[in-house]
Amino acid sequence: MTEIVECVPNFSTSDPKVVESILNEVRKTRNAFLLDHTFDSYYNRLVVSIVGNKKSVLDAALNASFKAVKLIDMRRHKGQHPRLGAVDVVPFIPIKNTTLEDCIELARKFGKTLAEKCGVPVYLYGEAQPKLERKDLDWIREGEYEKLAENITKPERKPDFGPAKFNPKSGATITGARKLMAGFNVNLGTSDLAVAKKIAKALHAKKGGFSNVKAMAAFIPEKNITQIGMSINDFEKTPLYRVFELLKVECARYNVPIIGSEFCGMAPLKALMDVAAYYLKVDNLTEDRVLEIAIHNVMEKGGAFE
Amino acid sequence: MTEIVECVPNFSTSDPKVVESILNEVRKTRNAFLLDHTFDSYYNRLVVSIVGNKKSVLDAALNASFKAVKLIDMRRHKGQHPRLGAVDVVPFIPIKNTTLEDCIELARKFGKTLAEKCGVPVYLYGEAQPKLERKDLDWIREGEYEKLAENITKPERKPDFGPAKFNPKSGATITGARKLMAGFNVNLGTSDLAVAKKIAKALHAKKGGFSNVKAMAAFIPEKNITQIGMSINDFEKTPLYRVFELLKVECARYNVPIIGSEFCGMAPLKALMDVAAYYLKVDNLTEDRVLEIAIHNVMEKGGAFE
Repeated sequence: MTEIVECVPNFSTSDPKVVESILNEVRKTRNAFLLDHTFDSYYNRLVVSIVGNKKSVLDAALNASFKAVKLIDMRRHKGQHPRLGAVDVVPFIPIKNTTLEDCIELARKFGKTLAEKCGVPVYLYGEAQPKLERKDLDWIREGEYEKLAENITKPERKPDFGPAKFNPKSGATITGARKLMAGFNVNLGTSDLAVAKKIAKALHAKKGGFSNVKAMAAFIPEKNITQIGMSINDFEKTPLYRVFELLKVECARYNVPIIGSEFCGMAPLKALMDVAAYYLKVDNLTEDRVLEIAIHNVMEKGGAFE
Repeated sequence: MTEIVECVPNFSTSDPKVVESILNEVRKTRNAFLLDHTFDSYYNRLVVSIVGNKKSVLDAALNASFKAVKLIDMRRHKGQHPRLGAVDVVPFIPIKNTTLEDCIELARKFGKTLAEKCGVPVYLYGEAQPKLERKDLDWIREGEYEKLAENITKPERKPDFGPAKFNPKSGATITGARKLMAGFNVNLGTSDLAVAKKIAKALHAKKGGFSNVKAMAAFIPEKNITQIGMSINDFEKTPLYRVFELLKVECARYNVPIIGSEFCGMAPLKALMDVAAYYLKVDNLTEDRVLEIAIHNVMEKGGAFE
């Protein structure tokens, strides 16, 4: 049985040359596949999607991170996305015939190796973090890189791996395991960041929004518009169409048009199907009713399509 | 390279025992896979989806048709869906590493064999029919089974295979090749068939609607509602969301609520993605941006996920 894991490392860069060097490390890793990458200068962040078996994905994530630590200098980094370090967040995601436990193990191996080889402090988050009060990604990233020198010396913020000592060039890294999530960005036809922040707030879990949603507002200078960046960490419980419809409601309140949207990273099939099913009023749309998926499943099972 | 063909035979029955016997013929055919089947008493029609390589799909379609010819008696058949025979329409569809030409050849082999072995007159339609004036499925099915005895003796309606002689038990069969299409049924919260017919008419190509759409209205006695049954034969040119939005417009005109919808047969991924992209306002949603599809593609290419 084919085992598949995904890793979606987030690096603090949007320099095309640095991006290319990082991606090449993934491409060079045996049995690892670069599925996707996106980067934006306003977030100043590179998001990479790697798939493969456990070993190859771990290798690729490490190789890419070694290169990022070498090439990125956090002392010169600015960007609207919260970040703690050059290799900022590295989640491992079970896709097929692998479990969250497998991915927790990968995250621990990743963190330990990165800390040992590069002297970068590493925090575990989410399921990979045993201590309840340290699980939350936002808590770990509090104060961001700028406050890290001060924060890292506090006993409650001692890194899980590596030195409890500020690394000015690389900052710190956060790694863990999580379920597949949906990243979705919506561009708003307003340059008013204050309004965009109000809209984001309406969706954001910790501010009273949907319990599985994180939403933030950013200004995109080259287009003179704003963007709501969202992640839905359980899109089966909080389907994308529902989040989008609420976003439409809040946009209407402020007379802000929605210009366009994009998935951040790969789009999970289930999230797309839920959207189609909702708007078309289909009750029973399951993956095995999608022709291409049904054929793949039959081929995997039967294997007799000679 | 794996070659994949789909065949979607339509049989004039909704008798569960007959359905089961027909499906078993598909299940018994080596290397053919039964993907899906649906049947409704109001249409009195069974739609089966078979996939496999060229040989296995042809075998399965023939085996299922031999059984249908044996078990179905058109003299006792009633149903709201237009039909000409027990084995009514048998389209072959190229899915992967096969062409429309391959499928035309399959349709010709299918028609010839069915005619020879069962004495059923067979018409070719669509791309498989060389004569322009005979390509249209609706033209072939004009007058339906009830007028077949009269029609079949006309020179312009001479069957492509088999005797130009009325077969009272089995009627006639239509076979051909076509591109993948989307079948979609929408249930309306009205029992007024006249209104449902007006709505269907607005969508139907030949009545001024979308050029790639066929739409018909049917009454569903057990629910006391009506249904618009649609097929979109080129859903890239005429995307499903556009058809559905027009349907909503026409329904609003008559104050008819849309109760729910369903795909008839398998849902093509591209059709679903277009729906999601439209409603979410995503510009650039392509299949390779869907995680599961991208992973399948990478696995097929690389094959190195051991």
